[in-house]
Amino acid sequence: MALARSPLAPETLPELPPIGGVRGIAHAAGLRYAGRDDLLLLHFPHGAAVTGVLTLSKCPGAPVEWCKRQLPAGRADALLVNAGNANAFTGRRGRVSVERAAQAVAQALGCSPEGVYLASTGVIGEPMPDDRLADAVAAAAGQLDEVDWAKAAGAIMTTDTFPKAVARACEIDGKPVRLVGIAKGSGMIAPDMATMLAFVVTDAGLPAEILRPLLAAACARSFNCITVDGDTSTSDTLLLFATGAAGRFEADSPTDRRLADFAAELEALLVDLAQLVVKDGEGAQKFVTVRVRGARSDGAARRIGLSIANSPLVKTAIAGEDANWGRIVMAVGKAGEEADRDRLAVAIGGVTIALDGERVPDYDEAPVAAHMAGREILIEVDLGLAHGAATVWTCDLTHGYIDINADYRS
Amino acid sequence: MALARSPLAPETLPELPPIGGVRGIAHAAGLRYAGRDDLLLLHFPHGAAVTGVLTLSKCPGAPVEWCKRQLPAGRADALLVNAGNANAFTGRRGRVSVERAAQAVAQALGCSPEGVYLASTGVIGEPMPDDRLADAVAAAAGQLDEVDWAKAAGAIMTTDTFPKAVARACEIDGKPVRLVGIAKGSGMIAPDMATMLAFVVTDAGLPAEILRPLLAAACARSFNCITVDGDTSTSDTLLLFATGAAGRFEADSPTDRRLADFAAELEALLVDLAQLVVKDGEGAQKFVTVRVRGARSDGAARRIGLSIANSPLVKTAIAGEDANWGRIVMAVGKAGEEADRDRLAVAIGGVTIALDGERVPDYDEAPVAAHMAGREILIEVDLGLAHGAATVWTCDLTHGYIDINADYRS
Repeated sequence: MALARSPLAPETLPELPPIGGVRGIAHAAGLRYAGRDDLLLLHFPHGAAVTGVLTLSKCPGAPVEWCKRQLPAGRADALLVNAGNANAFTGRRGRVSVERAAQAVAQALGCSPEGVYLASTGVIGEPMPDDRLADAVAAAAGQLDEVDWAKAAGAIMTTDTFPKAVARACEIDGKPVRLVGIAKGSGMIAPDMATMLAFVVTDAGLPAEILRPLLAAACARSFNCITVDGDTSTSDTLLLFATGAAGRFEADSPTDRRLADFAAELEALLVDLAQLVVKDGEGAQKFVTVRVRGARSDGAARRIGLSIANSPLVKTAIAGEDANWGRIVMAVGKAGEEADRDRLAVAIGGVTIALDGERVPDYDEAPVAAHMAGREILIEVDLGLAHGAATVWTCDLTHGYIDINADYRS
Repeated sequence: MALARSPLAPETLPELPPIGGVRGIAHAAGLRYAGRDDLLLLHFPHGAAVTGVLTLSKCPGAPVEWCKRQLPAGRADALLVNAGNANAFTGRRGRVSVERAAQAVAQALGCSPEGVYLASTGVIGEPMPDDRLADAVAAAAGQLDEVDWAKAAGAIMTTDTFPKAVARACEIDGKPVRLVGIAKGSGMIAPDMATMLAFVVTDAGLPAEILRPLLAAACARSFNCITVDGDTSTSDTLLLFATGAAGRFEADSPTDRRLADFAAELEALLVDLAQLVVKDGEGAQKFVTVRVRGARSDGAARRIGLSIANSPLVKTAIAGEDANWGRIVMAVGKAGEEADRDRLAVAIGGVTIALDGERVPDYDEAPVAAHMAGREILIEVDLGLAHGAATVWTCDLTHGYIDINADYRS
C-alpha cells in the first residue's frame, strides 16, 4: 500500500553534515520491500562509545536482547539496521539470526561480533532470511563511504511517509562538536519507548558512562513524551554513538558545566526527532501539544498528559476539529493521578474554556474553533494542585489510521 | 447523526417480566433529543435495598457524587435517569442541579430526597436545564405504572444503536426470584467502570450488606472485563435495587449456600449486559473474546487481556480481518505483567498459531482467516507461567468509531 506523505511533514530534510569517525551505506537488500533501500550499515573504523535506551516490552525482539547484552561494554564497531522484518517473536531461530547477522558484519569489517549493534523493524513473527541478509551485508560493506544521512534515514523506514533526520552543533570546552540523528516510526508509538528506531552519531569524544545519563535524561523529555496510539513495540531502540573524531573530552560527571551545551543540543535533537515521529503518526492530520501543569509531580503531569494524548475520544474529537473539552476532563479523571475537579482549568489554543471546574461564563467558541481547524493544536491543563509539569506530543486519530492498520500485513 | 443499528445487536429483546415492588415510566422530557423518551423514573413504593458500583474517575459527574453520598444508607425510594446531558464538570451548578432533581422526585412521590438515586448521561460540561427536568419529573410521576422494561432501556440510550435489557430467574431457599437489568453505553467504555449506566432490579428481599459483596464480585467478572476504547466515563453507574416483593431472606453472609444460584444469575445477567454494551461498541463490526491463562495471577491475566483488548493495533487488525498475532504478542509485552516470550502460546479461533515463542512450523492460515471473517472472534493467550486466568470482551476499531466520535457533539 502506497501511503501519502503526511501533511505534517517538513518540506525538506535539513542540512546534514558529515560526522568524523563513521562511514556507512544504505543498501537495497530486498528483504521485503522492492525497489528501495532497506538496510543501513554504519562502520566506526576507530570504534565508538555507545549507549542506548531499549523497549521495556516483556516480549522484545531478538536484536533488542542482543543490544542489551552488548551495551554494558559501551563500545561499538558497527551498526546494522534492516527494515521489513522485525525478527521479533521468532524464538530460538531469532537468536540464531542475530548471531549470524553480527557474524556477517564482523567478518566483512574485520571487527568482533560483540561490537556490532543490530536493529530490525517490520513484521513480527516472520523468520529472518539469514542468507540473503548475510549476502547483503557483504555487498554493502564493499561500498562504505562518507554517510549520506538522507539515504540512511530512508533505508530504515517502514510505514513512515517521510525520512526523519536532524542535525545539531555545539561546543564542548571550546571545541566544535556535531550531532546527527535519524529515526523511523509512525505507528505502535508510545513511551517506554515510542515504537521506533533512532540512531544518533556525534563526533564528541565522551565515554559511555558520561553518555548514558545524558541520553536517559534527554530521552525522558523527548521520546518518552510522545504517543501515537499507546502501543509499545517489541523493537524500540535508541542508540547514541560517539566517535571521538572531534577530540576527547575529560569529563568526570554528566553534570560537568562544559557539557551543558552538548546535553541541551542532544535533548533538542531528540525532541525534534520525536516530534517528527508524531508528525508521521499513522493517519495524522494534526500535531497536538498537551501541556500539563499544577500536578502533584512532574511524573503525575506526564501520566495525565499521556492519558489525554492516548484517549481515542480526545483524538477523534481533534480529528473532527471539535473543541470537546469534556473529553479532556474525562481523560484527566481516568489518569489515576490526583485531580480536583473543582480546581481544574482547561485551555485550547490559548483560550481558557473551563476554570475552577466549570465552563467560563463568557466562553466564546469562535477563536477555539478557528484554532481547531489548524494543523497544530495546543491543549493546556492546569490541575491547580502543585507545581508538577510536563509536555506531551501526539496526533489525531483519523480514518487514515484505520486504513493503514487494518491492512498492513497484506 | 442517525446511527445504523449495530450488526452485532440481538434480533429482539428477551421476554422481560414485571418485577414486584417497582413502578416506573419512560418519558419524553425533551432535554436534548426530540421525539423520543429521554427520562426514566422508577418508584419503589415500599422502598428497596440498594448497592452500587460507581466510576473511579477523579472528575466524576455530580450525580455520581450524589449516589456515592447516599449509598452507605443502603435504602432507595426512587431512581431518576436522564439521557442527553451528563451533568458532569458543571461545577457548583451541577451540585445544585442534583439537589433540585432529587427534590423534584421526592416532592412528586412523597419520599425523602436522600432516597432518590440519580444518573445522567450525555454531553459533559453543559448546565442541566433544571426547570425543564423538574416539570418532566412531575409529569412522569403522574403516569407511573408497571415498568415497561423495553421502553425503560430505550429511554436511557445516547449513542446506543439498540436497547439493552436482560432477565433472569432463580430461587433463593426454594422461593422464585426474578432479576431484570437494563444498560446503556457504547463509547467511552473501559473498566472501572465501563462508561455506561446499568440498573438491575430484583424482587429478592436481601439487605444492602449482602447485596454489596455479591454485586462487587459479579461486576469484577463482567463490566470490569469489557472495553471499547479504554476511555473511562465521568458518569459510570451500576445500581442494584432489591424490592423484597418475593419475600425476605435471612442470610448471614454473601457466601450463604442458599444464595449461590442468585449470585450466579446476577453475574450471568451482568455478563450479558456487559457483552451487549460491547456489541454496541461505537463502530463495532466484530465481537471479540480474549481469554488469557497461565498468568501469574487472575489480576495479571485481566491486565494482559485488557492490554490486548485496548490495543488500537490489535483492534484495527481485527477490523481488517487480519490474524496479526504479532500485534497480540506486542500487547502482551507492553502490559507490564510478567511474561516469558519463549513460553507464550497464541491461538485464534481455536487454532494454535504460536507456541513456545515462535510460529508453529506447520501453521495453516486458512482456517484462521475464515474465523477472522466472522462476527465473533476468539483470541486465546497462554502465558505458560502459572494459573492466573481471565476473560475480557471487546470489539474491533473501525471507520465507524471515527465517524461517530469525530462528530458527536455537533
